[in-house]
Amino acid sequence: MSASYAYLGPEGTFTEVALRTLPEAATRELVPYVSVQSALDAVRGGQAEAAFVPIENSVEGGITTTLDELVAGQPLMIYREVLLSITFALLVRPGTKLSDIKTVSAHPAAQPQVRNWLKAHLPDVVWESAASNADAARLVQDGRYDAAFAGEFAAARYGLVALETGIHDAENAQTRFVLVGRPARPAAPSGADKTSVVIWQRDDHPGGLRDLLGEFATRGINLMLLQSRPTGAGIGNYCFCIDAEGHISDRRMAEALMGLKRICLQVRYLGSYPRAGLEPHQAGTPYPGTSDEEFTAAADWVARCQDGRF
Amino acid sequence: MSASYAYLGPEGTFTEVALRTLPEAATRELVPYVSVQSALDAVRGGQAEAAFVPIENSVEGGITTTLDELVAGQPLMIYREVLLSITFALLVRPGTKLSDIKTVSAHPAAQPQVRNWLKAHLPDVVWESAASNADAARLVQDGRYDAAFAGEFAAARYGLVALETGIHDAENAQTRFVLVGRPARPAAPSGADKTSVVIWQRDDHPGGLRDLLGEFATRGINLMLLQSRPTGAGIGNYCFCIDAEGHISDRRMAEALMGLKRICLQVRYLGSYPRAGLEPHQAGTPYPGTSDEEFTAAADWVARCQDGRF
Amino acid sequence: MSASYAYLGPEGTFTEVALRTLPEAATRELVPYVSVQSALDAVRGGQAEAAFVPIENSVEGGITTTLDELVAGQPLMIYREVLLSITFALLVRPGTKLSDIKTVSAHPAAQPQVRNWLKAHLPDVVWESAASNADAARLVQDGRYDAAFAGEFAAARYGLVALETGIHDAENAQTRFVLVGRPARPAAPSGADKTSVVIWQRDDHPGGLRDLLGEFATRGINLMLLQSRPTGAGIGNYCFCIDAEGHISDRRMAEALMGLKRICLQVRYLGSYPRAGLEPHQAGTPYPGTSDEEFTAAADWVARCQDGRF
Amino acid sequence: MSASYAYLGPEGTFTEVALRTLPEAATRELVPYVSVQSALDAVRGGQAEAAFVPIENSVEGGITTTLDELVAGQPLMIYREVLLSITFALLVRPGTKLSDIKTVSAHPAAQPQVRNWLKAHLPDVVWESAASNADAARLVQDGRYDAAFAGEFAAARYGLVALETGIHDAENAQTRFVLVGRPARPAAPSGADKTSVVIWQRDDHPGGLRDLLGEFATRGINLMLLQSRPTGAGIGNYCFCIDAEGHISDRRMAEALMGLKRICLQVRYLGSYPRAGLEPHQAGTPYPGTSDEEFTAAADWVARCQDGRF
Repeated sequence: MSASYAYLGPEGTFTEVALRTLPEAATRELVPYVSVQSALDAVRGGQAEAAFVPIENSVEGGITTTLDELVAGQPLMIYREVLLSITFALLVRPGTKLSDIKTVSAHPAAQPQVRNWLKAHLPDVVWESAASNADAARLVQDGRYDAAFAGEFAAARYGLVALETGIHDAENAQTRFVLVGRPARPAAPSGADKTSVVIWQRDDHPGGLRDLLGEFATRGINLMLLQSRPTGAGIGNYCFCIDAEGHISDRRMAEALMGLKRICLQVRYLGSYPRAGLEPHQAGTPYPGTSDEEFTAAADWVARCQDGRF
Repeated sequence: MSASYAYLGPEGTFTEVALRTLPEAATRELVPYVSVQSALDAVRGGQAEAAFVPIENSVEGGITTTLDELVAGQPLMIYREVLLSITFALLVRPGTKLSDIKTVSAHPAAQPQVRNWLKAHLPDVVWESAASNADAARLVQDGRYDAAFAGEFAAARYGLVALETGIHDAENAQTRFVLVGRPARPAAPSGADKTSVVIWQRDDHPGGLRDLLGEFATRGINLMLLQSRPTGAGIGNYCFCIDAEGHISDRRMAEALMGLKRICLQVRYLGSYPRAGLEPHQAGTPYPGTSDEEFTAAADWVARCQDGRF
Repeated sequence: MSASYAYLGPEGTFTEVALRTLPEAATRELVPYVSVQSALDAVRGGQAEAAFVPIENSVEGGITTTLDELVAGQPLMIYREVLLSITFALLVRPGTKLSDIKTVSAHPAAQPQVRNWLKAHLPDVVWESAASNADAARLVQDGRYDAAFAGEFAAARYGLVALETGIHDAENAQTRFVLVGRPARPAAPSGADKTSVVIWQRDDHPGGLRDLLGEFATRGINLMLLQSRPTGAGIGNYCFCIDAEGHISDRRMAEALMGLKRICLQVRYLGSYPRAGLEPHQAGTPYPGTSDEEFTAAADWVARCQDGRF
Repeated sequence: MSASYAYLGPEGTFTEVALRTLPEAATRELVPYVSVQSALDAVRGGQAEAAFVPIENSVEGGITTTLDELVAGQPLMIYREVLLSITFALLVRPGTKLSDIKTVSAHPAAQPQVRNWLKAHLPDVVWESAASNADAARLVQDGRYDAAFAGEFAAARYGLVALETGIHDAENAQTRFVLVGRPARPAAPSGADKTSVVIWQRDDHPGGLRDLLGEFATRGINLMLLQSRPTGAGIGNYCFCIDAEGHISDRRMAEALMGLKRICLQVRYLGSYPRAGLEPHQAGTPYPGTSDEEFTAAADWVARCQDGRF
């Protein structure tokens, strides 16, 4: 297995910056790929040890390309997640002043985040879409456009300077990235973990989905994401990508997953991994009756009853 | 441990007849006791191997004396149950004709079952309560009363004859009896079993009891009895005696009991034993997702996920 | 309709004392009856305006005779409840000392409450059961027994004195009584009310009872009593007597009852009435989303949606 | 209000074809718009009576642009839906043979549906993305490309012919379109309707979402779509777009919506409208206890109880 990490390229984007926040990234070769699909294929094919791709952002929701890749095909597993706040810098060639800017470029996904800023500060500017924010910066360097919206970190790479930083229309704009590899034993629980699964309903009847969610609820497990994705079997046929609080080695989570496995048509386990941005001591205590100690005590009690010793 | 069975006496009652339907009764000394409490105390104290007592009847519901004894004190366990249809014979001394009968006697509990028959056939008779139906028969033998309502089986014992048999106002009148012993390993599942427990709620809030019952419901387990009994902690404080379909060695039942143990203040296991009047092949198949095979497969799958092999 | 109240006699018992705590009792003729059934029949037949009978006590649980009368036959309705703490006085003829007492009498139901006291103070006394505590007091007056356990209030009536008062083995021993009449509009809500119903399940399947209780739970309604009673259709066939917090004029209660009516085989409404021992200001606030205001606002919103005005 | 329908243009696309299947479209001016947002803005601003836009397809799932427009801003309402099977024709200029084709064009969304066909029949062709399938056809007409994938209906408009029709990699590929207008009274129930709402959870706790779905489940209402969309309040904050079987004038649906309104932070009603592709007689009967008749009977019963007439 190659000791490289594939990531959604090109270089100089938020994805790369997020990836570099992982300590293990420092010891791997980081290889940009042109698409989420190609990065994950590199993992499946053994060309890369893992792939780092966006999976959710606070403006668009779940990144469907990534979810659909995880839902289907050869199983993959999530090992890490990274949360990155997305704010833009306005990058220009040294010497350019705000009043000089007639054209501005960025990836279309940046637009919702800079629209208000543009209206206030550059109402008459012409917007030109680019293939990525990094590419927009390159085109500014080449003199094709006057300014680019990109991460501040891209300035140095393209010999540009930031006229303004921290541009963001939406407060709390964040993107969540995951490091995905081939299935292996999940990391030991950190104390503040999440577990990802995909479930397919066995049949469709009133209460069907409620009962599936009940497998988590009755064991005191909070849900952090519920994203439906089409199964390909025609309109109205969905599976559900679910992120739930906790680790598969927690007794409550193991029993909940068993419950899903029993009543779902299919369950795909996508991994248990530390929650980004949360220290173990912030994770809160389990709901009454759902701690590992209580599960163990209950199992012991049933064993004693089965044995007539009580 | 003494190889005797205590039972609620006196001799010649429905309880004794029910007890004698158990094959194992043929090899034990059967000892009548004057009360449910004294019979169970004989078990607790080691004077008897087991006690045979009524626990439910179709007219009165749960027999509270028996339930309260099982709920409190030193733990006991149910090993067998017997269902007996309750119909009465009108017993008289040989030679007595219906028109000769001026007085009739029985235990007060018999009254609801013979009231209509009396109204139709002996409207002017005087009713005299007796301590038991067997005692009523004895008093007829002694010449004190003209007739007694008792089980037909009591006739021979007291030198009486049955003028009429099969008397019962309510259709389907049945009493359920249980054989109770000290805790030991329950019998292996017969294929058509029930499990008895007592549960105490941790606290009282909307949905509290619903959630406890949910531990059975979400695992496809049917309830056969739910009887509240006061805890003694003041009005409105109840525990619940529950009979549920299945055996503690069923995976679904073991997990349901674990769930109760985790969320209840207290759970008392009262045993798993064959359902009276039901052959194993009549027990029906488990609900989808709740068979032992499905539980085992789900546990295997979770173990493989925990191990990264899937 | 007669302006009399029937009650479970004889005179001088706890039932009469409890009845006299109701202000309206002062303006009625109070007529003792020999049984719960006869008292309720007097109401059904129009001989009495209402009947006052025990329905639950903290030692025995639900009084099955009363519950079975309310469950079946011509519908009746509960209008009031009274909670009475049950403590006994030891009544003797004037001049009798503790050391003079060789025989003591009371109704058998008193025994669990005085057993420990007797063991400590009169270990060698002979117990003689009486038909009622009042009757025991009369027999002491007549010189037949030396002492009677009865309510302290019975002393004056029978020319006795209390050697000891406040005797009670179980703390919090209470009996709950209800005033039962023919169906009529329930009293307006007091602010701290309860509602009583009887429900029969439509069929029997895992989760059946849980779902019925869910009609209360999902609307934030707490249950105060759940008592199963046999339907008479054979062993294992039960209906459930339920006391729930709130008044039928509360929107949440009305909707919960509607829900039961829709999914049950049968529902019998037994009335909404003030909770004994609770001032309105102690009743607590409704759970979020279940107040009358929230129900009304939600109904208004749906009406506006149905009308296209939102 | 203008009697025109806005739709997602350009002309000659599947959207226009779907729109023309609505009888009412024949009497309106149909105006193409460049985006879903602009089409819906035309409705909000009063320039169009309604807008016709795609909302879900069987490959991509919910169309997030459309959902996000319905979720936020000035309320809109769905009045109709249309299901269109998506199969492609290969359009060429008259005289072009399969072997002549070196370049092929279409909207990128067409690619997943024709990829396998291309691999089998035109493995060496060069793919050129177009702004829409209709635009691709125009570019073939202009001689810029050799062939276009588009709906067969586009051939005539651009003077092209279909070399092949019915091309579709995925079976059952369908797109669902909706006709959206300003809020008004929904159409009367057709007998086979659906209701769309958006819900925001009040707070986040185990079972929160399960309980919201329970408002539908306990009233026997089936869900047809559950799509989470970010609220904009940061990662992990979602609202849910829900399609449920039935009409807001159904008693069960009205009560379910009331329930949601009471326990959700916010509910947005998006309309009740006939289900595409389903005749009323195919809609199935309501679950036991959930028909309008049963709701009405239950409401009547509660009213009688409140009034003391039962």
